[in-house]
Amino acid sequence: MSEPLTLNIGLCGFGTVGQGVWKHLSANLAELESRLGVKLNLARAAVRDPKKVRGVKIPARKLTADPLAIANDPSIHIVCELMGGTTLARQVTLAALRHGKVVVSANKALICEHGPEIIAAAQKHGGHFFFEASVAGGIPIIKALREGLVANRFPRIYGILNGTCNYILTQMEEHDAPYAPVLAEAKRLGYAEADESLDVDGWDTAHKAAVLAWLAHGVWVKPGQMIVEGISRITPDDFKNAATLGFGIKLLAVITRDLARNELSVRVHPTLLPASNVIANVSGVFNAISVTGDVVGTTLYSGRGAGQDATASAVISDIADAAALLKHGKGGHLLGEASAPARGGCRLAPPESIRCRYYLRLTVKDQPGVLARVASVMARQKVSIASVIQSPAATPGAASLVLTTHQSNERAMRDTLKLLGRLGAVLEAPLLIRSGDFD
Amino acid sequence: MSEPLTLNIGLCGFGTVGQGVWKHLSANLAELESRLGVKLNLARAAVRDPKKVRGVKIPARKLTADPLAIANDPSIHIVCELMGGTTLARQVTLAALRHGKVVVSANKALICEHGPEIIAAAQKHGGHFFFEASVAGGIPIIKALREGLVANRFPRIYGILNGTCNYILTQMEEHDAPYAPVLAEAKRLGYAEADESLDVDGWDTAHKAAVLAWLAHGVWVKPGQMIVEGISRITPDDFKNAATLGFGIKLLAVITRDLARNELSVRVHPTLLPASNVIANVSGVFNAISVTGDVVGTTLYSGRGAGQDATASAVISDIADAAALLKHGKGGHLLGEASAPARGGCRLAPPESIRCRYYLRLTVKDQPGVLARVASVMARQKVSIASVIQSPAATPGAASLVLTTHQSNERAMRDTLKLLGRLGAVLEAPLLIRSGDFD
Repeated sequence: MSEPLTLNIGLCGFGTVGQGVWKHLSANLAELESRLGVKLNLARAAVRDPKKVRGVKIPARKLTADPLAIANDPSIHIVCELMGGTTLARQVTLAALRHGKVVVSANKALICEHGPEIIAAAQKHGGHFFFEASVAGGIPIIKALREGLVANRFPRIYGILNGTCNYILTQMEEHDAPYAPVLAEAKRLGYAEADESLDVDGWDTAHKAAVLAWLAHGVWVKPGQMIVEGISRITPDDFKNAATLGFGIKLLAVITRDLARNELSVRVHPTLLPASNVIANVSGVFNAISVTGDVVGTTLYSGRGAGQDATASAVISDIADAAALLKHGKGGHLLGEASAPARGGCRLAPPESIRCRYYLRLTVKDQPGVLARVASVMARQKVSIASVIQSPAATPGAASLVLTTHQSNERAMRDTLKLLGRLGAVLEAPLLIRSGDFD
Repeated sequence: MSEPLTLNIGLCGFGTVGQGVWKHLSANLAELESRLGVKLNLARAAVRDPKKVRGVKIPARKLTADPLAIANDPSIHIVCELMGGTTLARQVTLAALRHGKVVVSANKALICEHGPEIIAAAQKHGGHFFFEASVAGGIPIIKALREGLVANRFPRIYGILNGTCNYILTQMEEHDAPYAPVLAEAKRLGYAEADESLDVDGWDTAHKAAVLAWLAHGVWVKPGQMIVEGISRITPDDFKNAATLGFGIKLLAVITRDLARNELSVRVHPTLLPASNVIANVSGVFNAISVTGDVVGTTLYSGRGAGQDATASAVISDIADAAALLKHGKGGHLLGEASAPARGGCRLAPPESIRCRYYLRLTVKDQPGVLARVASVMARQKVSIASVIQSPAATPGAASLVLTTHQSNERAMRDTLKLLGRLGAVLEAPLLIRSGDFD
């Protein structure tokens, strides 16, 4: 028998994820090699500070401070971009693809911002771009969408894509705790970044939603084109009100495709989910995604959405796919690797066109006639009230007014919010939570 | 540009699943072809009776009554074996593989019975064998195990793999209905076969468990080597008792690997699952599988486990994988397609060695001293009782005695059952349900 092919792997970025990949790949190397019929060589790693002491040991000669040196090294076949950021990461990714290498990426922000350029570079130069780790950590959702469910169009995909937010919401709900101290605790535990805004304001979820929307529909949607709302204004009382009404509250990405009108909608916002919905019961740092295909029906995927090990599992599966591909020479391409599924060029629905039920929390002056004024504003916008919960607010002389609506139109609801904001009796900007009547 | 490769597909079997594949593949052909860069031609279909009128129309010239003619037709590249059975299906599969073709199969019984022979034939003759549709219908669990989670060893895989049983159990639980009429209704609705034993006695689940165990651990386990128990003795009272104790009852396949002792256990039986476990809440014809990997942690997959459309979704994904493979010439092989993952040759644990908690229902004479005698038998076998529920049985003069145990040993429990059966006060064979304290 001839010598098996040796594939050299370079890691750009050797933080939590990079060290996890090195550790688990080293531990399972012999078995992976035997299954793939190739030799895998962890050849180089780029680190910010080669002198720093790390939990995972790596020979000094394999280290470099220059990730571009790895991207441009002709002996490296597979470049794992695990640095994060979108500037140097973009340079490294494009350089490696221009050399026809395989790039494995966990970088959803990069894909969201520069996806078309990256895919075009891969196609032009015979490179390949794999990104299983970019969405939902160790859950093989990318592979499910592009390969396992390839027979399907996707009327609806929704789910929890950010473990930090789900951890915070779960803690708030279970311990009746306000947002700020729970966030502080999450930071202390390393579940939230020092600058939390990427997570809690919904942008990380929006990046991942953009990746899923492209995979499923072949359309690049920018976060700026989506409704993106975060969790920082949710209160413990909102969880109590939601529970009274039979709901939980989750930060969801929601990607819907109206197959008849050929319109796509992508949005990220706190969502009321019926308590009976499995995803309403996914707690802590777990992610969960519901995928409805026009052939398969609804399928569900859940697991750890982040962390060293889960992310390493996804990166290593991409490395294995890359190895299977490279074994056959660089001419090949994997199923679904086309730049965009030819989904018939669907267009983006205007955000104002969505319809759902709404949960609206107002802090109002506790005086006669306020409810009547609020209700009449809503009636004029043809927003029909389904339930009202009134309770004392924290501020003396104020009341909390929670209204839920029947199916309404986003445009009517936005006009309603504007008009309610002008009422003297409304003391702060209303909080809006959309409902997800998905199953 | 050169003409794209045309791949000819032959369907052996044109019943529910075959017609579903034809229908959905035809509907999505242009898009699939564009994504794959090949032409897909639905060339031939073998049917039992070419004259029969079918819901899905197919030109008469494409029909044959001889599936072996398709397997041996040199113009056919991809043979879908969708007939079921293990005799003619085996001949068709082996013939096609010996010609180096790709065989796509939904036939878990065939894989379970003849897997080693099929895989050996594929390897020897350069054929390929794909079987995503054989387990859990449209859920891409085969792909998840062999590709998406390739970085992992699997300490535990368990789940609901038979939609018929889950439908029956759900109906019994929700409507407080006995087994026999629910089964009759399931037959009327087409959810259960005229001969229900393959489903309700656990054999279909065992076939699927064997496929998953092979994928995850590289070991072929025969149903005869497993504990396989069905659902026919479960009663509505069992659901009530289980609920009182905080559990639901599901028919599960349980595949556990003791990584330290390198022992594998595969079993199929009704299982008490904590009511908080997501899988305890998966109802009707849905399947759900929990996969714990040593790197990724626990991931969960659910969806429709059977039916024309879900199964077609899985078959078409295999056809797409086959097309991506054949595009590169027949020399290639897909990730994980090796005969067996080199899992270090783990050995099968003796069924008697498992440990769990047990639920035991006895019908006993309603007279003084019976509980004492039962308890003393259990004490002698060192089976420690955790709870007792006594209630009147349907038969006058009889009582129902439900005992749960602390963690016990299967061997001790079997000895206990034998001794209890010999007590004059015990009126019928005890019913045993094992508990799954999985999360």
